[in-house]
Order: sequence, then structure tokens, then C-alpha cells
Amino acid sequence: MQNFKIENPTIVHFGNDVINDLGKVVSNYGKNVLLVYGKGSIKKNGIYNAVIHQLNSIKANVIECKGIKPNPLIMDVNNAVSLGREKQVEVVLAVGGGSVIDSAKLIALGISSGGDVWDFMENKRKPTAAVPIISVLTLAATGSEMNQFAVVQNPQLKKKLGFRHKLMYPQHSFLDPSYTFSVSKAYTAYGIADLIAHALENYFGKGEATLSDRFVYSIIKEAMDYGPALLNNLGDYELRAKIMYAATMALNGLTSNGREFGEWGVHSIGHILSLLYDTAHGATLSIAYPAWLKLMTERIPERISELGKALFDQSDPEKTILEIENFFRKIECPVRMSEIGIDGSKKSEIIQLMIQNKVGGMHYSLKDKDVKRIVEYMFEG
Amino acid sequence: MQNFKIENPTIVHFGNDVINDLGKVVSNYGKNVLLVYGKGSIKKNGIYNAVIHQLNSIKANVIECKGIKPNPLIMDVNNAVSLGREKQVEVVLAVGGGSVIDSAKLIALGISSGGDVWDFMENKRKPTAAVPIISVLTLAATGSEMNQFAVVQNPQLKKKLGFRHKLMYPQHSFLDPSYTFSVSKAYTAYGIADLIAHALENYFGKGEATLSDRFVYSIIKEAMDYGPALLNNLGDYELRAKIMYAATMALNGLTSNGREFGEWGVHSIGHILSLLYDTAHGATLSIAYPAWLKLMTERIPERISELGKALFDQSDPEKTILEIENFFRKIECPVRMSEIGIDGSKKSEIIQLMIQNKVGGMHYSLKDKDVKRIVEYMFEG
Repeated sequence: MQNFKIENPTIVHFGNDVINDLGKVVSNYGKNVLLVYGKGSIKKNGIYNAVIHQLNSIKANVIECKGIKPNPLIMDVNNAVSLGREKQVEVVLAVGGGSVIDSAKLIALGISSGGDVWDFMENKRKPTAAVPIISVLTLAATGSEMNQFAVVQNPQLKKKLGFRHKLMYPQHSFLDPSYTFSVSKAYTAYGIADLIAHALENYFGKGEATLSDRFVYSIIKEAMDYGPALLNNLGDYELRAKIMYAATMALNGLTSNGREFGEWGVHSIGHILSLLYDTAHGATLSIAYPAWLKLMTERIPERISELGKALFDQSDPEKTILEIENFFRKIECPVRMSEIGIDGSKKSEIIQLMIQNKVGGMHYSLKDKDVKRIVEYMFEG
Repeated sequence: MQNFKIENPTIVHFGNDVINDLGKVVSNYGKNVLLVYGKGSIKKNGIYNAVIHQLNSIKANVIECKGIKPNPLIMDVNNAVSLGREKQVEVVLAVGGGSVIDSAKLIALGISSGGDVWDFMENKRKPTAAVPIISVLTLAATGSEMNQFAVVQNPQLKKKLGFRHKLMYPQHSFLDPSYTFSVSKAYTAYGIADLIAHALENYFGKGEATLSDRFVYSIIKEAMDYGPALLNNLGDYELRAKIMYAATMALNGLTSNGREFGEWGVHSIGHILSLLYDTAHGATLSIAYPAWLKLMTERIPERISELGKALFDQSDPEKTILEIENFFRKIECPVRMSEIGIDGSKKSEIIQLMIQNKVGGMHYSLKDKDVKRIVEYMFEG
């Protein structure tokens, strides 16, 4: 076991009607609130009104920042930073899924630090402060509500990068499972694929950490046992709660304690597909994970075998990958590029951008020939 | 799933040589440090010197409070409070196991609030502040290093009570597995029994929380898979680390999220045995848990069956209890009163004090006849 620190300051309010505490919590940080959200679905499902009601109850000055894209863009972040600085924002309140919360985190850094936020992503400049971040989660997937990560893309540079910083933990996150009732079947499934991928990225990280492995199995089993039922009952509170809680635990530190770092190679591959085809993040992962695992049967068959034993009660690496693929198929997530409408003529474009972006995880590096094989697997069959 | 809050402010520094950061961390809180420890084993194994070296490096004024008993006493806590108030202590530094950390937490409340700390235990008075608490853990067992609980006994009143308060989370806890190398085989085993009991108390709490159940299984399996090996290799860092981490996770909130509350009936029974015979806490639990479970086969056979399926791959409640007993035997923890030298003539004394103290958990109440049957089971066979 590697040395590690447990330090997660996010206070999670989980359950039915937790929104009722939002106003009081926000008021502890300030009156000038930057309300960050996406394309407006929260106006249809009543969440926007509930949030505004809370903010009005504390007489907050609400500055709206809407239109964050599902694959969030750095220019939207930078524009929000300018607005936030101009309006002397004291709290950034994210109402949405991972893309909104990730953007809000970077906006909060930018408001306190100024300049181009992309500089942080490229490690050209270090943030020194952030205004407090509060989130109201509307999509179970990324775990951003209880971690220090943010991912954003820069279409000009054709880059999608992740960034981590202690200042980016939300102070408070409000997780009401009923707030995810209106998430479509497809996006609910992508969220499930995403949380499984997060658990796996930690599982394939560097360093032996047996209890963290067991937590990985627990989270993936929870998702596999209840995910399919949820897709047939999108308005079931208990099932929404199980998946929401699993997604939060998949990437809040729990699955990485005792490891030097996670793998994250599959995410870097997935980001390329989002950059090129604006594919939903979870859908890129259900395609890329089996492909990456197929390559890894040569390097780490025992590790894949252990996973198979724990999840499917069999230890054959190939069969383990097949089981994972079958699960993704069962929840109607794509496992091949053809299923997202991309044909084999695009292989070279994908390979080129993957090599240019130096895809490859923190633990298992990928040579050009490895990248090519992964791409072949993504199209195969 | 019940509504819940995740809010655990303790920063855990886990691993080899984490003590090197102690001085810097303490200096963030103050110079006047009350150093709380037990009967002096830390002077033999070098831990005391390492701590003093850190405190000297920041020119701290060290006020010593030694002699905390394994089953800690309220008078020792109150004496330390007087000393702490007189010396204007700014930080309470606990170096020890659960008894020392629990005492330190109560001392920290007392220093800020004054008066008799026992008033808090009996809910006669509410604490409003506490000086910061820092712990250096030397025994893997109670999880006190990362929670808000403290247990202390009052021999005059023949009571051993638990108390929880948000102010009692340590600010920082330092967990170096090598700091537990010198813990005896017996106390290492009691620690393992204790952590398993903590996971079980949450498992048998009120409310369905499937992922928390899986975390319970994970923690217990970790303890059962590696505990016996540790007892044959007391100086093995990796095994010490696994058990230390499992003990912390067993009672830091992780296993109770989504439940209304834990059970804790077995602990209340165990406390009676400690009160009467000064039995080590973990040893009381390895006796009391099987006995309590035997009674519960009539009330909650399915719940015990689920546990059996997850831990031992069989679903018979009686066999599950036998497996748990067998595990405790394997690690040489007592499972019957005779094994701690108490014969059947003491039954009525035990029953009387159990009834007088109103033992019985938060979820499953125990009538007088239930208490008698549990005591019978503790002596039986």
C-alpha cells in the first residue's frame, strides 16, 4: 500500500428535498451568486425554479451563466470568468451534471485568479485561490460533485484535458435522486458506463490496495445489479438513489486510497472521440474500455482475471471483457464505433489525433502500435 | 435509502513516516499542546520520542497527561480537563488507540466548555466548542481516529456510555502502520474483532442501503482474509496497513450512509462485560456478537442469510453464525464467557447489570427475556 491522504472537504447532502437547505448554505458564503447551468433542461423539470426560490429566500443577487455544453468548452468558462469578475461573484453555484460542475470549478478558479483558465489546464500557471463552489447535481455520472477534477475541451487546439486541484472541491453538493428523474434512458446509461469506467480507472492504477479493490467491485456490482432495472423504471427513486450514490463514490477518492495513481488511459482515448464527433462521454468509454482491456490481456492478464473473479465469478480475462461488453450492450451503450455511426474510413483520423494528443494512461503507456490496435478493436466485429 | 449527509472533516495521513508532518500540522493550531497517552508503552517503542521530536521542532509547550486506561475512565478525563484549562491548552494531541483518542475528544470538549464532562454523556448539557484534536494512532481497532464518537466509563455509576458530537472529529489523524508493530497478538486480534463488530453494527442498522452493505462485506472480508496472516506476522507492514485501513473505514460513516442509524446493541452488551470484569473491548464483542445473532435468527433470518451469502457463500443463518464464531476462534478471540475465565455463577450479576443499563440496540430492542437468552448463549457450549 502506498502512502495516501484522505482529505475531502465536500459536504454532501443526499436525499429527497435536500434542496430546502440550499439557501441557508449559500448564504454562508455570500450574496452574489453565479448560477451556472446547461442548455436549459432545468427550466423544464422544475429544478431551476426550486433553486431560484432558495436564492430568493436569502435575497441573493443571481447572475446567470447558462449554455454550458455537455462536452464543456474553455471559451464558455473564460466568458463566465469575465462575467463573474465584473459582477464580483462570491459563490459559484453549479446546477447540472459533470460538464456544468466541471465548468463551475474552473470558473471559480478563474474568478479568483484572472487570465485565461486554459493556462491551468496546460500547467502554465498555478491557481492560488477559488471562490466557493456549491453544486446541485442533476445527472449521476462523473462524480464531480465530490472531487477535485475538471475536464474541459479546447476546440481550437483540438485538446480535451483534465485538471485536478484541491481548490476545486465543492464546499457543498446537493444530491436529490429525484432531480435525475428526467434524465433520458440513454444518458442514464452513459452515466452508468461512466461510473463503472471511473472505478476501473482506479482499479488499474499503480500500487496494490486490496480494500480499494473491494470498494471498486462493490461499486461496479451495485451499478450492474441495479442499472438495468433503473433503465426500465426511470422514475424509481430508490434505483436513482443507488446509481447516484455509486457514481459519487466511484470517484471521490475511495477507490484510489493506497494507490500511487489511477490509470486514466481509457479516458484519454474517450476524450479523442468526444473531440472528433462530440460523442457523449459515457458512450466513448463503453467503446474504449473493452478495446483497451483487449490490449491489456497481454500485459496484465492476472489483474483482469482478478476482476473477473470478483464481478462474474470466473477468472478468464477474455470472458471477463466479454461480460463487461455484454453489460454495456444490455444497458444499450455502444461498444463499437459503428454503433455511434462512425465507419472504418475514420480510423486514420482517430489514430492521428490520439497520437498527436499522446493518449496513454498514467500507469500503462501506449506506443503508436498499441494505439492502432485499440482503434482496430473499437471498430472490430 | 434514507437521506444522509457526508461530512467528515478529519484529514488522514496514512503510511510510513507520516509523523514527519506532525509538527507542521500541530503548529497550525497552537503552541500549548496537551499530550494524552496511555500507560507508557509509547515510551518503549519509540513513538513517544518521535512525537516529542516533532513537538520540539515547533517549540511547543508540552503538557503531559498520561495513564489513560484501556477502558477509559471519566475521572481521568475530568482531571485532564482541569489541567488543560489551567495550562490554557490550544491543541489536544492523542497518541494511542481508541481509549486514548476517545478520552482526548472528551477532554477537548471539556477544556472549551468546563464543568463535568459526564454531563455530556448523559445528555444533561450540550458542548458548544472544543479545542482542536489531533491523533497519532497506535492501535487499529476503534476507528476513533476518523469519527465523532467517544466511549468512556463511570465506575461509580457502573455505566459505560458512548457519545457522538460533530466537534469530536479529529482535525488530523496520523496513521503509520509500523506504529502498530508492537501491539501484542491478543490485542491485534481484539482490534480485528472490534472492526468487524463495527461493520456489523452498521449492517444491522435501520434502513436499506445496498452499497453500504457491500462496503460492510468488503471491510469484513479484508479483515478475515488478512487478519489471520497478520497474527502470524505481527511485524508485516502491508498486513498491518490493510487492517489499520479497514478499521478506519469500518466506522467513519462509510458503512452507515443511507441508513437511519446503526444497531449498536452488541456494543451495549459488551460494555457491561468491560464494566464488570475489565474485559478488553474487542474480546467482549467476539463473545457477544454470536450470542446476539443467535437470538436474531428468529427476528431477522433473511438479513443474516444475506450476510452469509456475501461473506461465506452460503445462506443458512445458523451456519453463518458458526462461520463468524469460527473466525473469532481462528484469531484466538474468546467466543464464550468461560474463555475469559468467567463461570456460570456470574450469570445473574451480568443479567442484572444489563437490565439496569437498559442494554438493547437502537434498532432491535431487547426485553428482559431476550437479555437472559443472550447471556445463556454467551455461556453455552
